[in-house]
Amino acid sequence: MKMFKTRTISLLMGLTLGLGAASSAYSQESLEDVMKARGLTQKDLLAAAKTYTPTGGRDEYMAFSSGGQSGHVIVYGIPSMRILKYIGVFTPEPWQGYGFDDESKAVLAQGRIMGKDIVYGDTHHPAFSEKDGEYDGRYLFINDKANPRLAVIDLHDFETKQIVVNPFFKSDHGGAFATPNTEYVMEASQYAAPYSSDFVPLEEFNDKYRGGVTYWKFDNKEGRLKPEESFTFELPPYSQDLSDAGKNASYGWGFTNSFCSERYVGGIERGRPPFEAGCSQKDTDFLHITNWKKAAELVAAGKVNKVNGSYLITMDQAVKEGLLYLVPEPKSPHGVDVNPKGDHIIVSGKLDSHAWVYSWPKIQDAIKNGKFEGKDPYGIPIIALKDALHTQVQVGLGPLHTQYDAKECVVYTSIYVDSMVTKWDYCEGKVLDQLNIHYNIGHLLAMEGDSVTPDGKYLVSLNKLSIDRFNPVGPLHPQNHQLIDISGDKMQLLYDMPLPLGEPHYVVAIKADKLQPAVRYKSGWNSRTDTKSEYATRAGREKVERDGNRVHVYGTVIRSHITPEIIEVEEGDEVSIHLTNLERAQDEVHGFAMYSQNVQLSIEPGKTATASFTAEKAGVYPYYCTEFCSALHLEMQGYLLVKPKGYQAKATEMQEGEQYTQADYDKQVKTNVETQGVIDSVVAFITSHNYKDFPTVVALVEDATDQLGFATEAKTKAEEYAAKGDYQNATLWAGQWWQYQVKTADLGLRAKTHLEENGAKKVK
Amino acid sequence: MKMFKTRTISLLMGLTLGLGAASSAYSQESLEDVMKARGLTQKDLLAAAKTYTPTGGRDEYMAFSSGGQSGHVIVYGIPSMRILKYIGVFTPEPWQGYGFDDESKAVLAQGRIMGKDIVYGDTHHPAFSEKDGEYDGRYLFINDKANPRLAVIDLHDFETKQIVVNPFFKSDHGGAFATPNTEYVMEASQYAAPYSSDFVPLEEFNDKYRGGVTYWKFDNKEGRLKPEESFTFELPPYSQDLSDAGKNASYGWGFTNSFCSERYVGGIERGRPPFEAGCSQKDTDFLHITNWKKAAELVAAGKVNKVNGSYLITMDQAVKEGLLYLVPEPKSPHGVDVNPKGDHIIVSGKLDSHAWVYSWPKIQDAIKNGKFEGKDPYGIPIIALKDALHTQVQVGLGPLHTQYDAKECVVYTSIYVDSMVTKWDYCEGKVLDQLNIHYNIGHLLAMEGDSVTPDGKYLVSLNKLSIDRFNPVGPLHPQNHQLIDISGDKMQLLYDMPLPLGEPHYVVAIKADKLQPAVRYKSGWNSRTDTKSEYATRAGREKVERDGNRVHVYGTVIRSHITPEIIEVEEGDEVSIHLTNLERAQDEVHGFAMYSQNVQLSIEPGKTATASFTAEKAGVYPYYCTEFCSALHLEMQGYLLVKPKGYQAKATEMQEGEQYTQADYDKQVKTNVETQGVIDSVVAFITSHNYKDFPTVVALVEDATDQLGFATEAKTKAEEYAAKGDYQNATLWAGQWWQYQVKTADLGLRAKTHLEENGAKKVK
Repeated sequence: MKMFKTRTISLLMGLTLGLGAASSAYSQESLEDVMKARGLTQKDLLAAAKTYTPTGGRDEYMAFSSGGQSGHVIVYGIPSMRILKYIGVFTPEPWQGYGFDDESKAVLAQGRIMGKDIVYGDTHHPAFSEKDGEYDGRYLFINDKANPRLAVIDLHDFETKQIVVNPFFKSDHGGAFATPNTEYVMEASQYAAPYSSDFVPLEEFNDKYRGGVTYWKFDNKEGRLKPEESFTFELPPYSQDLSDAGKNASYGWGFTNSFCSERYVGGIERGRPPFEAGCSQKDTDFLHITNWKKAAELVAAGKVNKVNGSYLITMDQAVKEGLLYLVPEPKSPHGVDVNPKGDHIIVSGKLDSHAWVYSWPKIQDAIKNGKFEGKDPYGIPIIALKDALHTQVQVGLGPLHTQYDAKECVVYTSIYVDSMVTKWDYCEGKVLDQLNIHYNIGHLLAMEGDSVTPDGKYLVSLNKLSIDRFNPVGPLHPQNHQLIDISGDKMQLLYDMPLPLGEPHYVVAIKADKLQPAVRYKSGWNSRTDTKSEYATRAGREKVERDGNRVHVYGTVIRSHITPEIIEVEEGDEVSIHLTNLERAQDEVHGFAMYSQNVQLSIEPGKTATASFTAEKAGVYPYYCTEFCSALHLEMQGYLLVKPKGYQAKATEMQEGEQYTQADYDKQVKTNVETQGVIDSVVAFITSHNYKDFPTVVALVEDATDQLGFATEAKTKAEEYAAKGDYQNATLWAGQWWQYQVKTADLGLRAKTHLEENGAKKVK
Repeated sequence: MKMFKTRTISLLMGLTLGLGAASSAYSQESLEDVMKARGLTQKDLLAAAKTYTPTGGRDEYMAFSSGGQSGHVIVYGIPSMRILKYIGVFTPEPWQGYGFDDESKAVLAQGRIMGKDIVYGDTHHPAFSEKDGEYDGRYLFINDKANPRLAVIDLHDFETKQIVVNPFFKSDHGGAFATPNTEYVMEASQYAAPYSSDFVPLEEFNDKYRGGVTYWKFDNKEGRLKPEESFTFELPPYSQDLSDAGKNASYGWGFTNSFCSERYVGGIERGRPPFEAGCSQKDTDFLHITNWKKAAELVAAGKVNKVNGSYLITMDQAVKEGLLYLVPEPKSPHGVDVNPKGDHIIVSGKLDSHAWVYSWPKIQDAIKNGKFEGKDPYGIPIIALKDALHTQVQVGLGPLHTQYDAKECVVYTSIYVDSMVTKWDYCEGKVLDQLNIHYNIGHLLAMEGDSVTPDGKYLVSLNKLSIDRFNPVGPLHPQNHQLIDISGDKMQLLYDMPLPLGEPHYVVAIKADKLQPAVRYKSGWNSRTDTKSEYATRAGREKVERDGNRVHVYGTVIRSHITPEIIEVEEGDEVSIHLTNLERAQDEVHGFAMYSQNVQLSIEPGKTATASFTAEKAGVYPYYCTEFCSALHLEMQGYLLVKPKGYQAKATEMQEGEQYTQADYDKQVKTNVETQGVIDSVVAFITSHNYKDFPTVVALVEDATDQLGFATEAKTKAEEYAAKGDYQNATLWAGQWWQYQVKTADLGLRAKTHLEENGAKKVK
């Protein structure tokens, strides 16, 4: 048929039709007209120019945001403020197959509490792994406040690899914070609770309820937290809040603030004033100072006992060993932030309009000289405010969190009640600039702002309320992250980014070029354990193994078929389908969904993923590829047939829907021969150029060679059937031969285009 | 203490500090410098100006995208291309409490299959409700391909209200498509399967496997689908694909295309050519034409039988009654699109480089005259292509889907293999323009493009691969939606938007001003049933009810406390905590999370939501608010105490962490008196202006009045305790009195600012 041939040739020659899409001109509209029509000012245009990123452009920074009670981590680019990925961490997420494939279920199972699956998390504070106080772009840590846990995300593939459960706490807010060489990751408790899982009446709050801060040991080589080498400081039942690790001058120490050091227990329903009243009655709370370096030495020396199977440094031991001190801080604070040099520490209290700047040298002196104003009810020495304070600066109403600029002494503090950012100088103690935000800012974020060399440039205001900033979307509003240019003397608001899912608390941003994520896995890879999967399957080696009612299917996926296409099991069988993605091409992901079985895999190139389920009921269960992967994606399908127990098949043949003749076969072969000519010309082009200098092309050629190999196999089958006069099978195999040719050509053309667009040289 | 007083007064007067945040100037940078530094061309700047939306700006269109296998619906604005919300539909999502509160669990439970919870969906094609063929902005429908279901989202609050399970199918792809007055919503099956849930061998594929198209009756008044009034057309085991409802000239009819009309069954693992070969061997598939209007009359007349409890129009009946016809269409098509007048129908086949334009008048003539070229194997009359075709136009390689412009005869077709959009004229059959996209476009989207009066203006290209367009984020890439300006003769690429979660298939866009979402619920509202909740609780009416081991907690949430703050139950109790958000202020959402119990609620203003769980183990379970709602958000906490069975409390008093004296009390009262003065001045300002003309202010005043009422109650308690000489309780209640005052003032100041910024007039 004419159309068919036109299509084939046209496809394989890569011809464009008619007008030449690449050169499509744009009409000369006036910029002024557009600005007028859209009501943009010159200032808006400048902001647009500072954020707009044309197709294919790259962002300078990559931001990693907690997703709050969504349980995810959110990745976005700065300055484009485009969200690039939600990473499933504590909450199952089917697009990624997270919590759906056996491999990721094993990660989530690490986070079980009292044997129970927890199906969400409340992520708060992400932290990058560090080397010498610089972000090294290798790992990201994030906490779950609701169910005190910590997760490790590998920035090689943006996947969650590990979840650990805190052995003592019943909530955590002050995590994650990494020490300067990621020796440890800090996690502080929030709401005091007994360390045991037993019932303890609130009447025993002061005696039996406890806070704490855990230092999780991190193995930088293995990329995993080591519970057996981690330790926890027992702390009073104050509500510990955020932490920060000391750096440079204060290296080896950690800082953790707190609220409700009144140890007040509410009970509005029984006539007691509520928590909010009793927890904000005193004018100060306590900053906790812990010496993790010396503590680690004690642990190594075998001097720390284990409780709940984990090292616990009791308050008595900590005080005795000089590991733990308190300093008064402004009441109900949120955020303690150590400056890049490590010699100043800034704390703001939400109910105090001042930021308090502490001097680390002064604190060290007090500790060295044993100069304390007293002890708290648990015997912990308290350093007097006057012996620790550098200065107090009035920054605004409801100050929360401070980030450091590249310029020395310059910081930015989020001001919740006043809905603004205050830029100020903590050395001289003066306010430099203020900018309104929209509305009610929580944390803020500067580029590499937690590292020893902050970059400045941009600030992001993490606003808790958006109210009227965006088109309305019902009673539940998006959050609003506002991008601010801080390169000049005055802050300039650039962009409002709505957060469409989740309620971020804190974000960290890293130079984009520090990240080198992979685009494919080694073939047959378990991405969660980072080892070769025991279920890895190569093309042609697909098989089904049965042991009693346990069935393992070793399958593969590739454009555009799943092998096997028909799976037969019996009612009651326990079925595991292991699928390996044979593709090497970037972005050639396949999915795998099945009717009514909660099966949904995301199988990136090279990955092996497993769907396990019980075939409870006899019936017919279609399955298919869920990632639109090729022109024949919809035809990438199959059937699971679950037979009743003891079912006896009748000896019937498959009914064919269509019959093909020799003429059909000849027509298909003619097409295929023409197609092969085109492939040959593409191959000639590629091999006559220095294609081996282009890794992308090498990968495409690898894939194309595979596909061509499959084409040859299909061709052989077609010819064998034709020789036997079976034109039904001959035609179908000839069709499949052509399908493989088309994929070969598609890959070849992509490679050819890449070479042309990237200045490949003719070599022969 | 001095700071304390300064803060109070400053807070309540709304003073800004130092530099005056509002007037912060921006430095006069050169636009040219920015463009040079960021490598922007003049064309880029024009594109930036066309999409950049300054803070507080509104988008002209709201797009609703399927989320693919994420199971969500994604809402974004056009032209800003900012994602505003992910709506949980088939997949639980904790930020929204979707699948966590009992109310939304009841919606998800409607979608159970064979009694089993399905924890994700594969959403494909969203559709708006319509009135006279125009989008009316009331409802959105979306399908689940993997587990054939349809969901109803209410655009009043952007929540999912209903899920229905198809009574016959085992997959669906061709849904949702609404008829012009939303009489029905179409859902077509994809992979043929038996209508029963029993096992049927593939050898009986032609005889026992079936496709179909269901017309779901929609009650426009109630806003719900009516399974008992819906009906399904039995169709041959071709893989039915997308549908479109006829409009104007073709009103009363529906169109559904198909692939694999070869009825081929693969089996590559057993030596058979795979599905992709056998399903693409013929040059044409079939467009199905169904008469839903006449079918509905048959149903109403009691002439259609029920199967599986639902009306099924068999092929025999459909043929006999003249309800069902076939026309050849280009093979492996994806998308059938009826033009606004309803007299032309465009179908593209992914393996044909032409789009085929059908003439509805010609098809009607053939039907009227009984002019058919034959029947398919199931006896369905086939209209000859020549008797139906208007023209065929070569649009490119791998054409998929067509959208209509505001200009008559002008359409846009997505071209998958060539990675481009072709603009063409379907009346005259000529190509007008072509634009490269990045990469491999699936569907495309024009503004109100499925309605009877498309808007033109913008086009969005839904690309299946992004490859190198964005900063890399690992092997799983985001999708890329590209915004294209179609207002001129030539298409102009404006913006690349990454999709960070999910794999959208189709998007629909509506004029933003057609949507009028609510910002709050009536007090005590069950948002899923849209009725007053039986658990609605008013302030002061909180209570705990027990019946055996069944415990109901009727609680409330408001800045910054949860009532009750302490809940005591026994091991083994079945606990339901019902919380009503007492706030009226926009965006004042509270959350509710509890340690280790999978409890996470999102409680928008007015909503009543319920968390139910079994208190399996004695212990202490902290709970807290998960939405940062106020300065004392972290103090919005409580404890669930699960006591061992038969536990006998010892008669111990609560241990107080701090003791307060008369001096503390006097200090607090002094602050409160000053604060009241400020509140009075704010009230005087508001009531001296025409504040009742501002609904936002009326709501704020309502809230403020509530808070002031609470303040008065707390004041009374403080004074009563002081009179008794109990300065502990007196001080704490005085503190709470002040907390209420602060909230009153906060609300009052917001109201005052709103009046000032919106030109309120002095009335007395």
